Amino acid sequence: MNPIMSRSEAADLVIAARRRLGLSWAAIAEEIGAPLVWSTAALLGQHPMTPEQAEKACRLLQLDERVAESLQTQPVRGADPAVMSDPTIYRFAEALAVYGPALKELIHEEFGDGIMSAINFRVDIARRPDPDGDRVVVTFDGKFLDYRW
Amino acid sequence: MNPIMSRSEAADLVIAARRRLGLSWAAIAEEIGAPLVWSTAALLGQHPMTPEQAEKACRLLQLDERVAESLQTQPVRGADPAVMSDPTIYRFAEALAVYGPALKELIHEEFGDGIMSAINFRVDIARRPDPDGDRVVVTFDGKFLDYRW
Amino acid sequence: MNPIMSRSEAADLVIAARRRLGLSWAAIAEEIGAPLVWSTAALLGQHPMTPEQAEKACRLLQLDERVAESLQTQPVRGADPAVMSDPTIYRFAEALAVYGPALKELIHEEFGDGIMSAINFRVDIARRPDPDGDRVVVTFDGKFLDYRW
Amino acid sequence: MNPIMSRSEAADLVIAARRRLGLSWAAIAEEIGAPLVWSTAALLGQHPMTPEQAEKACRLLQLDERVAESLQTQPVRGADPAVMSDPTIYRFAEALAVYGPALKELIHEEFGDGIMSAINFRVDIARRPDPDGDRVVVTFDGKFLDYRW
Amino acid sequence: MNPIMSRSEAADLVIAARRRLGLSWAAIAEEIGAPLVWSTAALLGQHPMTPEQAEKACRLLQLDERVAESLQTQPVRGADPAVMSDPTIYRFAEALAVYGPALKELIHEEFGDGIMSAINFRVDIARRPDPDGDRVVVTFDGKFLDYRW
Amino acid sequence: MNPIMSRSEAADLVIAARRRLGLSWAAIAEEIGAPLVWSTAALLGQHPMTPEQAEKACRLLQLDERVAESLQTQPVRGADPAVMSDPTIYRFAEALAVYGPALKELIHEEFGDGIMSAINFRVDIARRPDPDGDRVVVTFDGKFLDYRW
Amino acid sequence: MNPIMSRSEAADLVIAARRRLGLSWAAIAEEIGAPLVWSTAALLGQHPMTPEQAEKACRLLQLDERVAESLQTQPVRGADPAVMSDPTIYRFAEALAVYGPALKELIHEEFGDGIMSAINFRVDIARRPDPDGDRVVVTFDGKFLDYRW
Amino acid sequence: MNPIMSRSEAADLVIAARRRLGLSWAAIAEEIGAPLVWSTAALLGQHPMTPEQAEKACRLLQLDERVAESLQTQPVRGADPAVMSDPTIYRFAEALAVYGPALKELIHEEFGDGIMSAINFRVDIARRPDPDGDRVVVTFDGKFLDYRW
Amino acid sequence: MNPIMSRSEAADLVIAARRRLGLSWAAIAEEIGAPLVWSTAALLGQHPMTPEQAEKACRLLQLDERVAESLQTQPVRGADPAVMSDPTIYRFAEALAVYGPALKELIHEEFGDGIMSAINFRVDIARRPDPDGDRVVVTFDGKFLDYRW
Amino acid sequence: MNPIMSRSEAADLVIAARRRLGLSWAAIAEEIGAPLVWSTAALLGQHPMTPEQAEKACRLLQLDERVAESLQTQPVRGADPAVMSDPTIYRFAEALAVYGPALKELIHEEFGDGIMSAINFRVDIARRPDPDGDRVVVTFDGKFLDYRW
Repeated sequence: MNPIMSRSEAADLVIAARRRLGLSWAAIAEEIGAPLVWSTAALLGQHPMTPEQAEKACRLLQLDERVAESLQTQPVRGADPAVMSDPTIYRFAEALAVYGPALKELIHEEFGDGIMSAINFRVDIARRPDPDGDRVVVTFDGKFLDYRW
Repeated sequence: MNPIMSRSEAADLVIAARRRLGLSWAAIAEEIGAPLVWSTAALLGQHPMTPEQAEKACRLLQLDERVAESLQTQPVRGADPAVMSDPTIYRFAEALAVYGPALKELIHEEFGDGIMSAINFRVDIARRPDPDGDRVVVTFDGKFLDYRW
Repeated sequence: MNPIMSRSEAADLVIAARRRLGLSWAAIAEEIGAPLVWSTAALLGQHPMTPEQAEKACRLLQLDERVAESLQTQPVRGADPAVMSDPTIYRFAEALAVYGPALKELIHEEFGDGIMSAINFRVDIARRPDPDGDRVVVTFDGKFLDYRW
Repeated sequence: MNPIMSRSEAADLVIAARRRLGLSWAAIAEEIGAPLVWSTAALLGQHPMTPEQAEKACRLLQLDERVAESLQTQPVRGADPAVMSDPTIYRFAEALAVYGPALKELIHEEFGDGIMSAINFRVDIARRPDPDGDRVVVTFDGKFLDYRW
Repeated sequence: MNPIMSRSEAADLVIAARRRLGLSWAAIAEEIGAPLVWSTAALLGQHPMTPEQAEKACRLLQLDERVAESLQTQPVRGADPAVMSDPTIYRFAEALAVYGPALKELIHEEFGDGIMSAINFRVDIARRPDPDGDRVVVTFDGKFLDYRW
Repeated sequence: MNPIMSRSEAADLVIAARRRLGLSWAAIAEEIGAPLVWSTAALLGQHPMTPEQAEKACRLLQLDERVAESLQTQPVRGADPAVMSDPTIYRFAEALAVYGPALKELIHEEFGDGIMSAINFRVDIARRPDPDGDRVVVTFDGKFLDYRW
Repeated sequence: MNPIMSRSEAADLVIAARRRLGLSWAAIAEEIGAPLVWSTAALLGQHPMTPEQAEKACRLLQLDERVAESLQTQPVRGADPAVMSDPTIYRFAEALAVYGPALKELIHEEFGDGIMSAINFRVDIARRPDPDGDRVVVTFDGKFLDYRW
Repeated sequence: MNPIMSRSEAADLVIAARRRLGLSWAAIAEEIGAPLVWSTAALLGQHPMTPEQAEKACRLLQLDERVAESLQTQPVRGADPAVMSDPTIYRFAEALAVYGPALKELIHEEFGDGIMSAINFRVDIARRPDPDGDRVVVTFDGKFLDYRW
Repeated sequence: MNPIMSRSEAADLVIAARRRLGLSWAAIAEEIGAPLVWSTAALLGQHPMTPEQAEKACRLLQLDERVAESLQTQPVRGADPAVMSDPTIYRFAEALAVYGPALKELIHEEFGDGIMSAINFRVDIARRPDPDGDRVVVTFDGKFLDYRW
Repeated sequence: MNPIMSRSEAADLVIAARRRLGLSWAAIAEEIGAPLVWSTAALLGQHPMTPEQAEKACRLLQLDERVAESLQTQPVRGADPAVMSDPTIYRFAEALAVYGPALKELIHEEFGDGIMSAINFRVDIARRPDPDGDRVVVTFDGKFLDYRW
């Protein structure tokens, strides 16, 4: 038996195929029938796909069965620290360093002692036209979980 | 002359006054006439206030002139790493580790090579009622900046 | 106005009073009417107490109003890294390094893709008599949360 | 002579075989005749197996002699730090940061100065049905060892 | 399909070709029709090139299509920490440690609360003859962005 | 005898006096008769001042002899790592991560094997008007030093 | 109530008293009636003393009741990382880096899978005369604990 | 010419051969005619062997000339940090954290200002039978070196 | 009893007295009758002084008995990491990063397997006039110690 | 085209050839006509060689053209942190931690505010016979550079 292709190897193949076939992440998400950010994250290695999702993605991307098998595995989630300092990703981390304690205060004021779930959770990204330059709008939307013994 | 009261000392006094006077962050923001997350972050030490904002806040919170002076100073922005592992704040960092590379891909697909500004930027927080448990909805909204030589 | 006494200062006073008055953590928990591990963690600075809990604890421990006020504040949760290497605490971290990946596999096998909540969560500790030497039995009991978009 | 296959390479082959043959960790544990968490941890590289255990596991998983040899070697125990930030594993670390100092206090109160052994130790995991959502129950059960000169 | 050649592999091939063909970075920049520092950084893996730029560069450097494809991909930006301690690069970091807080004060004094953009940004390098030894003159030139909610 | 006032304590007093007296860094630099960035860095604790410079600065800032003594001491140079992640300073570090290896290549191409000195070195900052938004222009200007045995 | 004097504050007072009274660690250990290394470690903050031990030590060292109370508290064990690089302590760490993996092999060969306990454990130090220079002989003596489920 | 086989590659081959041939570390040490811990550490990559030692070891272990050449090279000494957290090795590090400062005090008391050499140094390991469980006894024995200008 | 003044507090007082009295390190070393670098390091907290040395130094520097007592204590040796990045100190660390492996090779070639002692060791510093600019000449001179079991 | 052989690969081949041909570093340095420490460092990857130096070295060491090409490339200077803890190299780092701040004081006293250059710099190593054991004498010799704006 051979080991299963790693999620990062599968992601590299997805990225190559997407580029060469001229497919957008949105087109792949639509083919899979799943939300855009979820699909992109899953193809990059952060979520297990169902067999149907994996096969649809691989058919569209002209990738073989070994990739489809990999995409169905349960990943170890998280990002390489080196990636977190890429400027496009770092701006989110900087915003969190500046506004994180304020968000904590406001969550506690509005909801009480607890957290926004990062599991029962979705993220959306949108472009908002603006005469001063269009804006990136990212929404974090998670169920409130109160500390409950 | 004496040194200016540090921003963290001022924040501790704001937090104590807020609690003892039974004031909400929203009430303080309204008094200042500034957005909720901005006001909370500013009072916690992340933004300089105008003299008017600082004085209004201190009058409402019954804090003296030394606090008002501190709130007008230009801060060194950022959070203590120990604070970033508080569970309420950590969930945002975890979401960023899981979805950050996907957001990078989608920003590049939609906008081209560039970033979401964390300077020309606002954050909002809202409660969204949901029969399965209300949700914390946090919106990051920043101007797109393209890499431009 | 004065800043609120920090949670760690309050914890030091609780520890001193407990020792000098010869009170057990169990006796304090009973007075508060809350579970043993929760009460101990709260008094050490990890949970906000209700006014009633804080006042009962302070009356029993002969501590003044400033401590009671501190115990009601929303803490920044987490432990000093230096504390995590104390041998009594480190053994839990070592067990997690050895068995963590196995627990992840078994959670996914039994429940699917998700986590054990650390928020909707309780911990118990018990002594189990054993002829080869009594045993420390610690139970982590958290609601399963599935990754749900 | 060739080097012995590394424990992580063996674990990757176990994981691939388990998935392709549709075997559960519980079925493998039963075949080996060893406890569930122990067997899973051993197959993932944290314990040496006896020749009998290794051969039974490899026969069931259709893996060759090189894997069986690897599974019998004495491992260097511990997990890759990157794995410890996977959300499913991180929740245990977070609980330990929040409750570790309280557990230390309570171990000392009940048992005196000493530790829960992580060597004379077992872990169990169970699912407890609950109308509000089933619960993951993980029990750490270690012999108390008192500091004894 | 094959994965796309990594940016660092492409950079290694560019460096080898440049050396063997005796080409200067300036000559390559001129061929590409782009600024010197930008071109060098792009070829080392920090910017995506247009198809025209990538093809011109590869033709001049006698590199094949796989390199040209790699040079067009969106990179994860940033440098290996080991590289940052190379003496030629470290001197810039040291200057920043010594003068960074002063630059912050002076930016705020002149422009108000905000930053020098590192995105709408260019860098130049020049040699300035000096009888005491020629000087390296590096200019960082970025648009001022004010903190704007 | 008393210890000499630390450079950071002196810097805090300089900052407070500057603010309360409404003096600009440029005005202080002019009074001292030294370049702007040098003076600001020196007052923030990065350079020793001559007795004349220290006394002129303290007379203008209405600070006493203990501050003047501190400003003449030889400092331990460098910045607190927490300060380096302030967004206004971090952008310089990010630019260095993106362009540092390119600057190294170009220094070697133009000058040979060596470095830009950070000791025989000056920094300037200027505002350049631009219809698309004024620009921060920072010039690093250091003597080239070749590796010479 | 006042907090209990910290173990490090108590250790500083023990060290000062020992020096001023010209007492050896051996003399204190003898007075306490406990082994030399244990006593020294306990007085430096690593073990709780019995009331009798603490009082005997404080009487000999002419220290007051507050020190005696501190010495009886349960410490958080471990050393400041800065202390571990002191050359006298570092040599032990270096020896462990060089010989640790060999000791692991030999423990497993002789005893099977398990560890030397650091809890059921004692350390001795002796001087061994040697014509080439006397030798420091430190013995680590811990109960073998086998991995036992 | 080919590079010399790395010490870690040689160690992996030694470990495989030892296991397959059923040889103990003691038997190999006896063949080499060197102390047990020294031989084990040398074979694991921490000491250069003489040509005679390397050839005797390789003949016994049925390893070829390339391994013998590697075993004679001067190694870079030290262990991978990941290995230091293996429980069997970690217990020594923990004992050092608890008793290191006490050992420093006692070395200075007995010998004066100086260190135990880790170079003119030997380590022994022995099993001491004990009715409460046999004990691992490890002796560090190094020449005292006084700070001498 | 009071704790002994810390070595860093004593060093701060030495530095202040030296400056105010206009004494050179060389003059203090001469008064003490000890080598220049040794004396400076000892006064900065890295070596214990004899009572005679400490009293001579304190008489010259007009410092009281508490400083003299502190200077005689056995220090924890080593420098604050922040100090190691001061440019004047960092250049030595950089030279070590560039030439350390070469020095290791050459020590082994000339002396065999072993080290230069940092304990039986002295350092000298001298100024060497040079028409191209005077030179700092620092000599590390340590006894060779061979690895000897 | 192929990438240029990395400097570390070239160094491994130099080390193997040197050993197999029985050549000393001194003999290679003499062949190259360059100082001993410089040559050794250059062959280990820290300096670019001239074509003549690289070819002479490769002819003597019987290495091919690919090694000679690699030796002429501009390296990224610095050592792997793991190497810095090898005992033979670590002793230099320890000496720097103990004497670094004293050297800084003495450089400033003798030369004023500035540094010893690590670029206009040479290192020598010598053996000094001594009846108590021969000594390793390493001389760092760098041009003084004063902070000059």
